Amino acid sequence: MKCISSKNNQYIKFIRQLHQKKERKKSGKFYIEGLRLIGEALHTGFPIESIVFCSELLISDFGWKTIEEGKNEEIDIIEVTKDVFLSFALKENPQGIAAVGFQNWEQIVSLQPLEGLWIALDKVQDPGNLGTIMRSLDGASGKGLILLGNTTNAYHPTTIRASMGALFSLKIGRASISEFHKWIMKESIPVIGSICEEGKNYKNFDFPKDMILLMGSEQKGLSNNLLEMCEDLVTIPMTGSVDSLNLACAASIILFEIYAKNESQ
Amino acid sequence: MKCISSKNNQYIKFIRQLHQKKERKKSGKFYIEGLRLIGEALHTGFPIESIVFCSELLISDFGWKTIEEGKNEEIDIIEVTKDVFLSFALKENPQGIAAVGFQNWEQIVSLQPLEGLWIALDKVQDPGNLGTIMRSLDGASGKGLILLGNTTNAYHPTTIRASMGALFSLKIGRASISEFHKWIMKESIPVIGSICEEGKNYKNFDFPKDMILLMGSEQKGLSNNLLEMCEDLVTIPMTGSVDSLNLACAASIILFEIYAKNESQ
Repeated sequence: MKCISSKNNQYIKFIRQLHQKKERKKSGKFYIEGLRLIGEALHTGFPIESIVFCSELLISDFGWKTIEEGKNEEIDIIEVTKDVFLSFALKENPQGIAAVGFQNWEQIVSLQPLEGLWIALDKVQDPGNLGTIMRSLDGASGKGLILLGNTTNAYHPTTIRASMGALFSLKIGRASISEFHKWIMKESIPVIGSICEEGKNYKNFDFPKDMILLMGSEQKGLSNNLLEMCEDLVTIPMTGSVDSLNLACAASIILFEIYAKNESQ
Repeated sequence: MKCISSKNNQYIKFIRQLHQKKERKKSGKFYIEGLRLIGEALHTGFPIESIVFCSELLISDFGWKTIEEGKNEEIDIIEVTKDVFLSFALKENPQGIAAVGFQNWEQIVSLQPLEGLWIALDKVQDPGNLGTIMRSLDGASGKGLILLGNTTNAYHPTTIRASMGALFSLKIGRASISEFHKWIMKESIPVIGSICEEGKNYKNFDFPKDMILLMGSEQKGLSNNLLEMCEDLVTIPMTGSVDSLNLACAASIILFEIYAKNESQ
C-alpha cells in the first residue's frame, strides 16, 4: 500500500474541504475523526467510504484492529504521512485515524409506521447543541431525529463530536416544513411541541408511546405554523432570573422524563 | 465626559486582557458584554466597576436606560469610539455596551447553614458547560455553585454568555477539595454524588431539601476521594450506544427532578 505524502493529493484536498458545509452538501459525504467515533461507525454498520491513518500517530491496538475490520468490510484504507494527517486533523492531539462517511439521510415518508420516540428540530443553529441532543436522545432510547428546513448540520464535525457517536445509531431524516406537515397529517403522527411557557406541565403529561417531540430554536421557539401542527404542547416549569433553558438541556429533561415513564410501565 | 479614542489607553488594554485567565486571576475582575447581561447584573445588584459604551453602536433605548441606571449606582461610565469598542468586543455584532465586574466569590465557610439546592463541580473544563449548568441551576431554584480546585472559570466570557446572566443571581463559591471536605464534615452537609453507573435511580431517590449535588468531569467522573464524601450516589439510567450524557444535560435532568419533587410537596 502506497503512503500519501503530499498535502496536495486530490483526495486529501477533498478531505479538508469536507470541513466546509459546501463540500458536504455537494458530495453527500462527511469527515469523521478519532478512534471512538470510527469504531462506533463500523460497529453500527454505518456506510464508510475510506479510513485514513498515519502509522506514526496511531499507537493504539484498538486503532489497528479497527483498520483490519475496515479492510474486511471492503472500505478503502489509505495511509498518509504525519504532515498530511495534520493538514486535515481537527483534534489537538490527533489519534492518527480519520474516515470519510456517506451521509445517511432517511426519507421521512419511509419512516412509517413511526415507532418509538423521535425528536424534530426547527432552526437549530448550533452544531454542538444538535450533537448533544443526539447523545441524549440515544441514551433515552430514542429512535431518530428529523431536521426541518433541509439543514446539513447533522454532519458538521462539531455535531459528530458532541454526539459521541450517537449519530451512527439514530435515524436522521430531514424535510421541509410543508413535507413534514403533509407527512404527519397523512400518517396521523402525534407531534408534541415543547414551548417555554403556557404548555402543559411535562411532568404530568401522558406522552404517547410513538411520538415526535418538536422543538424550535432557543431564540425564536416554534413558529405559529409549527405550533398548529402539534397535538399538544408541554412546558418545563421553572423559576429564577433566566427565562429559558439551553435547548439541549431542555430536550434532555423531557426525553428522560418520557424514557423513565416508558420504562416504569 | 471625554470619549476614549485610543486602543492603547491603559484601561482599554486592561479590558482586552480580561479575556485572559491570567488577568482575571490577578485583578479579580472580569468582562461582561451585551445589554441583557449588563441589565441582569445591575438588576441583581452585582458589583460593577465600570460600564463602557459606544454611542455609535448603542441603538437600544434599554441600553441608554441601563447607562443612566449605572450612573445612579455610581458606576464609572466610559464612552469609547467604535474602533476602541471593537478592539475588545467578543460578539460578532456588538451592541455597544460592555462592563467590568468584580468577581464575587463566596467563602464556603460563610455559607452555613446551607439552605436549598446547591451543586459542586470538580474538574469542569468546558466554560460553556459550566455556564449552561448555572442557567439550569437558576431555573431549578438552585441557590449556588461550588467550584472545587480553585478554578477561575466561572468568570470566563463563554461561561457568562452560556449562563444567560444566571451567574449574577447565584452564589458562587470555590474551595480546595480538602477545604470542602472539612466544611461538609463540620457542618454535616448532605452531599449526593452523581455517577454514570451503579448509583441509585435518581427518579426514586428522596433528595434532602438542603443538599449539594456533586458532579465530576465527563471524562473522569468523581475521584475516589470525592466519592467517599457522598452520603449517597445517584445515577440516570440510560440505554443506547453512548455510555454517558453531556455534563450540563445530566445536571439539568437531576436538578429538574429535584425541583419538581420540591414543588409538588
